[in-house]
Amino acid sequence: MNQTHYDVIIIGAGAAGLTAALFLKRSSINCCVIEGGAPGGQMLKAPIIENYPGVSKISGIDLAKNMLNQVNELKVDYVAANVLSIKIEDNIKNVVTDKGTLGAEKIIIATGRIPKTFDFLNPALEGRGISYCAICDGPLYKGRDVVVIGQGDSAVEAVLYLSSFVNSVTLICKDDYLKAKDMYQDHLKYLNNLKILYKTNILSFKEEKGCVVGVETNNGIINSDGCFIFIGHTPASEVFKNLNITDKNGYIETDNNMQTQIKGVYAIGDVRCKKVFQLTTAVGDATTAAVSIIKELSE
Amino acid sequence: MNQTHYDVIIIGAGAAGLTAALFLKRSSINCCVIEGGAPGGQMLKAPIIENYPGVSKISGIDLAKNMLNQVNELKVDYVAANVLSIKIEDNIKNVVTDKGTLGAEKIIIATGRIPKTFDFLNPALEGRGISYCAICDGPLYKGRDVVVIGQGDSAVEAVLYLSSFVNSVTLICKDDYLKAKDMYQDHLKYLNNLKILYKTNILSFKEEKGCVVGVETNNGIINSDGCFIFIGHTPASEVFKNLNITDKNGYIETDNNMQTQIKGVYAIGDVRCKKVFQLTTAVGDATTAAVSIIKELSE
Repeated sequence: MNQTHYDVIIIGAGAAGLTAALFLKRSSINCCVIEGGAPGGQMLKAPIIENYPGVSKISGIDLAKNMLNQVNELKVDYVAANVLSIKIEDNIKNVVTDKGTLGAEKIIIATGRIPKTFDFLNPALEGRGISYCAICDGPLYKGRDVVVIGQGDSAVEAVLYLSSFVNSVTLICKDDYLKAKDMYQDHLKYLNNLKILYKTNILSFKEEKGCVVGVETNNGIINSDGCFIFIGHTPASEVFKNLNITDKNGYIETDNNMQTQIKGVYAIGDVRCKKVFQLTTAVGDATTAAVSIIKELSE
Repeated sequence: MNQTHYDVIIIGAGAAGLTAALFLKRSSINCCVIEGGAPGGQMLKAPIIENYPGVSKISGIDLAKNMLNQVNELKVDYVAANVLSIKIEDNIKNVVTDKGTLGAEKIIIATGRIPKTFDFLNPALEGRGISYCAICDGPLYKGRDVVVIGQGDSAVEAVLYLSSFVNSVTLICKDDYLKAKDMYQDHLKYLNNLKILYKTNILSFKEEKGCVVGVETNNGIINSDGCFIFIGHTPASEVFKNLNITDKNGYIETDNNMQTQIKGVYAIGDVRCKKVFQLTTAVGDATTAAVSIIKELSE
């Protein structure tokens, strides 16, 4: 590690973390990015991104590379390490990693969230018929047959959304009931291209030429061009648990400046408690936090 | 005009409006964009944009073109017209333009805001030494001499920010006092590269080879590589005045979903009452509004 003390430490190098680094370092603020995995976060799972304004069609890997290059050009310190815990002493936030401890006046948590999935799913199918985001990937399946797996609000929301432009939706629910809000469930009965399979478990995903073509269940095989999985998300906030800044689901609560109840601790992107989890909202969050910090540090 | 009724009418074709159109139309929602001027909004004034994540360096015109192309590829109806007023009848929002009236279930106001400036300023200098955004353009002036014009919070914030990396800042204030918060003003005395000129009026901007090189004032000429003007902004909300959705400064107030107090009327981007006015926050706002509308319309 080059330094051990920074003005700002950013934890996580997805779209949110990289955007925060871009704004901070451009403003000559001494910051670093700590990331244990590959830079890019959830972007890395998207073969095609069509809804990032100003960039017509791009693979998630390329968009992530572009964001990383921008940050590298500014010579932001990049620390490849896993964060183990945060220790706050007076105004200094110490970030303990498996490669040593770094301190900063402020930290930005941008660790994202990970969609829950099936152990037996071949990860190479993610983005090749397997999706965890209907708004992002749904439009790629116009006029096609899709499966939605889940029973909660997100699953039923996805069904309502997808049904308006796909050929057919099969909703696969492991119990004999849905858990989604009654209001959402009420709307399902108006859909004439929906089939709901209750008490149905996924046994395997069928693939051909590297793409999903259907799911095998205890109730038979369902052919499908796309499978949308909504069985929950895990916000990557475990190591911040002792700070008491998360809600009951593990999402970090912030004010409108993205600051948590602990002064100098910010959270941005998908790890933050909010309603819309998109690339564009992640870069928006990041900018709001960064500009707020820039103003505070320049006072 | 092709149609006269839409699910959603977006007013304004800057970054916010175009992003909303991208998300809505990708989701097969029947929408149009109404714009009286050139598409692109404030982007058009930026010769170089360096802080849009994923796009390394791009002219504002090119970024605007890319956003417009994305929307055109989706065949979003683009209506070149000036909005004169909004009339709300039951659930229908009628948008009266100088080319006719359009109706929609929901409208998104994305008309932006315009920085106040000097009548005698040659608009070709905007982006060539004249800037209205320190966070956006300040880093282009590292180690250089700059002028900040204004006396309020934004001007003093810009001075505090710029002074940390430019060679010198001259703050030009027309009265014999500043209007910024005391707290901000207190910090000015710690800056050793700041000169404040009180009771000083700008008479003209000096240019050489199409770029600003200084300002002429009643107290002499000040050489400067960049002039940051902070004499206020005008949110483009005049035609929405009758809806009573603006604050005392004309910015439109919304909830976290970007909805105003009138159901079905949204505001996004720089016309919205908020703290951070950046391209990235505009696309974030737009996405939040669009996804919220998509969910509601699919129920």
